[in-house]
Amino acid sequence: MSGWSAPTRDTLFVLNDVLNVSECDLPGYDMLDAETVQAVVEGMGRFCGEVLAPLNPVSDAQGCTRHADGSVTTPEGFTDAYAQLVESGWNTLAASAEYGGQGMPHVLGTVLEEYMNSACASFMMYPGIVGGATSTIISAGTDELKDMYVPRIISGEWLATMALTEGHAGTDLGLMRTKAEPQGDGMYAISGEKIFISGGEHDLTENIVHLVLARLPDAPAGSRGISLFLVPKIMPDGTRNSVSCASIEHKMGLNGSATCVMNFDGAKGWLLGQEHGGLAAMFIMMNAARLAVGVQGLAHAEHAYQRASAYALERKQGRAMGKRSDPSAPADSLLVHPDVRRMLLDVRGFAEGFRALVLWTAMEIDRAHGAATPEERQEADALVSFLTPVIKAYGSDCGFESAVAMQQVLGGHGYVKEWGMEQIVRDARIAMIYEGANGVQALDLAGRKLAKDGGQVAMRFAALVEADLAGAPACIADPMRAALADASASAQAMLGQAAEDPNALGAGSYAFMQLIGLLAVGWMWVRMVKAVEGRDDDFAAAKRVTARHYAENALPLTASLRSRVQAGADNLMALPEEAFVRS
Amino acid sequence: MSGWSAPTRDTLFVLNDVLNVSECDLPGYDMLDAETVQAVVEGMGRFCGEVLAPLNPVSDAQGCTRHADGSVTTPEGFTDAYAQLVESGWNTLAASAEYGGQGMPHVLGTVLEEYMNSACASFMMYPGIVGGATSTIISAGTDELKDMYVPRIISGEWLATMALTEGHAGTDLGLMRTKAEPQGDGMYAISGEKIFISGGEHDLTENIVHLVLARLPDAPAGSRGISLFLVPKIMPDGTRNSVSCASIEHKMGLNGSATCVMNFDGAKGWLLGQEHGGLAAMFIMMNAARLAVGVQGLAHAEHAYQRASAYALERKQGRAMGKRSDPSAPADSLLVHPDVRRMLLDVRGFAEGFRALVLWTAMEIDRAHGAATPEERQEADALVSFLTPVIKAYGSDCGFESAVAMQQVLGGHGYVKEWGMEQIVRDARIAMIYEGANGVQALDLAGRKLAKDGGQVAMRFAALVEADLAGAPACIADPMRAALADASASAQAMLGQAAEDPNALGAGSYAFMQLIGLLAVGWMWVRMVKAVEGRDDDFAAAKRVTARHYAENALPLTASLRSRVQAGADNLMALPEEAFVRS
Repeated sequence: MSGWSAPTRDTLFVLNDVLNVSECDLPGYDMLDAETVQAVVEGMGRFCGEVLAPLNPVSDAQGCTRHADGSVTTPEGFTDAYAQLVESGWNTLAASAEYGGQGMPHVLGTVLEEYMNSACASFMMYPGIVGGATSTIISAGTDELKDMYVPRIISGEWLATMALTEGHAGTDLGLMRTKAEPQGDGMYAISGEKIFISGGEHDLTENIVHLVLARLPDAPAGSRGISLFLVPKIMPDGTRNSVSCASIEHKMGLNGSATCVMNFDGAKGWLLGQEHGGLAAMFIMMNAARLAVGVQGLAHAEHAYQRASAYALERKQGRAMGKRSDPSAPADSLLVHPDVRRMLLDVRGFAEGFRALVLWTAMEIDRAHGAATPEERQEADALVSFLTPVIKAYGSDCGFESAVAMQQVLGGHGYVKEWGMEQIVRDARIAMIYEGANGVQALDLAGRKLAKDGGQVAMRFAALVEADLAGAPACIADPMRAALADASASAQAMLGQAAEDPNALGAGSYAFMQLIGLLAVGWMWVRMVKAVEGRDDDFAAAKRVTARHYAENALPLTASLRSRVQAGADNLMALPEEAFVRS
Repeated sequence: MSGWSAPTRDTLFVLNDVLNVSECDLPGYDMLDAETVQAVVEGMGRFCGEVLAPLNPVSDAQGCTRHADGSVTTPEGFTDAYAQLVESGWNTLAASAEYGGQGMPHVLGTVLEEYMNSACASFMMYPGIVGGATSTIISAGTDELKDMYVPRIISGEWLATMALTEGHAGTDLGLMRTKAEPQGDGMYAISGEKIFISGGEHDLTENIVHLVLARLPDAPAGSRGISLFLVPKIMPDGTRNSVSCASIEHKMGLNGSATCVMNFDGAKGWLLGQEHGGLAAMFIMMNAARLAVGVQGLAHAEHAYQRASAYALERKQGRAMGKRSDPSAPADSLLVHPDVRRMLLDVRGFAEGFRALVLWTAMEIDRAHGAATPEERQEADALVSFLTPVIKAYGSDCGFESAVAMQQVLGGHGYVKEWGMEQIVRDARIAMIYEGANGVQALDLAGRKLAKDGGQVAMRFAALVEADLAGAPACIADPMRAALADASASAQAMLGQAAEDPNALGAGSYAFMQLIGLLAVGWMWVRMVKAVEGRDDDFAAAKRVTARHYAENALPLTASLRSRVQAGADNLMALPEEAFVRS
């Protein structure tokens, strides 16, 4: 039973034929000639396949161990693999050249994110946060802090965390109680308990840099009274700060990632950004993290697809209903069964479309940072903001559903640990919850991203999609036009209802998020089909078949999602709260 | 954090107000006066809540242990709880009075199945098979075998297994290799390895009666050469038979259920039914098991709903978007958020509707056995056969999806073991796979149940649904009519396409199964809404709101399922098999 190998051919197709990265004039893209892109993508694929993939089953079986002194041991092989990652320099690929990174475009860094998450998602949890953490420090820190911390985090010498959640304050960060007392010397003493801190303690690096949300003594109540602090495990003078890991969670999956309860007991730290401006500073990190979670969904779907398709080809069970290729064989491969093909094509329709979408979005992020004019930068930034909650929520929903569907292809073996498939399901489940539960993402989309600007960005997004339909085959262009109409009607319904009932946005938000997700992935299928126009090789044939499958199986859902949005909030809000609990 | 308690109020509503069991003139229903029904339902609920529910977390954490001598220890508390179950007599409630059971209608036995599965699904795996096993022996065994085995299995003194699957023969039982050699004395020597045998070895009873599929020496190839044998662990003379547990699987969940690899090494057994007629005999057991799996889906959904709704009421996070009940409180309960209510009502729409459906079906089974005329019995049997794959597949799909949705309500706590929710997700996953994977159920529905009789039973089912729409509120009757039209168009499309392309049935089967599932549950909502007509209490209000939610959120899906069916098989079958594997 084979595991995962990097889908480099599909990645290169997206980068070269769909996004034409080598022709893009953004800063750094001059490095992206076809040979370099191929060398980098294949190199990353090899590294992930050889060094990280073997860790995946071990990490699940062993998990992390917290010792009596509060130290945490990661699974066997993690420290060695981490050393190899740092040695290889892959971790610095897309990091800022100013602080020691290689300054390659974010679009290539996103490929690495996918591959690392497919190979061993729990390992990726440790370095996965580095991009967001360094962006936050670069954007909000003093020059002294930046010089002291950013280069050493980028190089991989140290790692970072984001410490937001408390027992009673998850989604609602305004309820947070952790305190920060100014010490008079420009530093602060942080005290409180944080939970669900990924990589809060581990043995991969000597120092761990915590970015911690806390309240200053004079802070106003709620989320406007939260400030962000940089709190290292080891202080610059080499002394141990009073931060410690009180316990690690026993979870459904992602066992190789240490999810820590962290105690800050007067720990020393520096303010990052403005007093009471912590939420804004943290959102730099959160947005990066949200996109990364969407990439995890893609990574899980791809990994699960590879295992299931290999099994389906190998496993002989049942006979074709139509013509059999070998009538004397006792059984045919699972791939003669239309319903098995359906499951595989469902997942492939998501995974390949979503790969194109996250790489397109990564390129927009490069545009938001590096485009020539402020208008262009701002436009790209607005599109990225609009799609961020969709990529996070739709990507992680579909990543999990894909893993579940692929588990089904393996039958009983899908439920047995040694086959490796059920681990993907367990690992994938958290992505729908962390970095803002998917319902919160949907509300962000409907509230902040749609309603706040009266649907302007949404319309710009729709116009981009619409423009690409010209010249696309009718089998996908027609259902895409219907999907666009459903999205437009849904947006109008929500905005119209919200004027009278603020709950209408919440009521329709989830279906609207799914609708935009379906549409965005469908858009990428339109672009991919156009990119293989005129080609008659196997790769192009598979793209056309998968696009048609997506059009016939995924896109018809938009009509039912529109019905859900249009139903509004009245019925949802009709019952008193107590009526929800069984009596 | 509260766990599960028996939803007796909803059960009694279905039995008394929807199905009117006390007015039914089937044999045994004369016992079902309102007082008796209430006493039995509440008694079963108490037993499951007090004796079984506390075992659930323990069973997950401990799992089963196989010792060097091949014996298997179940989790702490299982042997004691099993003794209490036998002592209480609840296990004999719906068993045949002729063999020592209490002879109550199957409809009451189904309530017990739900409750036991909610309380501790892995415990229920051991006695859960008894009904199917005893029916099979009663129907296919000699009088001597019946007298020797049935009463002691019904009483609970012994337990049973079904031993079908082999490493290379899962769905495709025709590939099976286990052999049965006649011994000349009317007995057979069975040799082979069976896998995935639930309760193949355990410490709950002294004897375990295996129902084993194997091939006689002169057996034709394929599924027509399979015979069924009764192979006890302990022979009537007290000697140990050569059946042994070689290992137990390490699974995603259901850890308290010992899933065994069983070696039959010339084990002695008796033929059950005709030579080469094993598949037919085993189908008596399989059909009972399939309905039971659907009930598991309901049980998981109900359990998960109770935990999530209790959490949602208790957890204060975020503020209502509209009017707040206490503007000075720092946060409101999760139930002020429309999207949280949506998730809860989605699950409630499934669970309450599906409870009514499985109890209605159980009553039809009672009718199939005990109705006055052969026509009535045959009609009921045909309806049960038609719905069996739907109940198995749609019930287990929705049970799992419900558990996943309810896990979402708990946020990060849903992913942490100590909160008990992620166990439900892991336990629920297997139901979509075992007793015939859900894709196989869908094919059974489309092929054997729809196509074979040219859609006759399907039309009878549709007529039953249609008849109940008269007098129902438009908010549900209208979408139900649209759903009926979608189902009819889907059936016609599949039957029409299948004449030219046998793969069309397989291609449309899954969407068709989901469509019938949506319709059947919607039908029950129609009946439930009519049953509370004129009532203005809280219970009736919740039924009306949930029915409307189902109409607005679930039923619109039927149109997209119809599109999927109509798409046919061409595109699914277009690629060569190798194109499914990444290159």
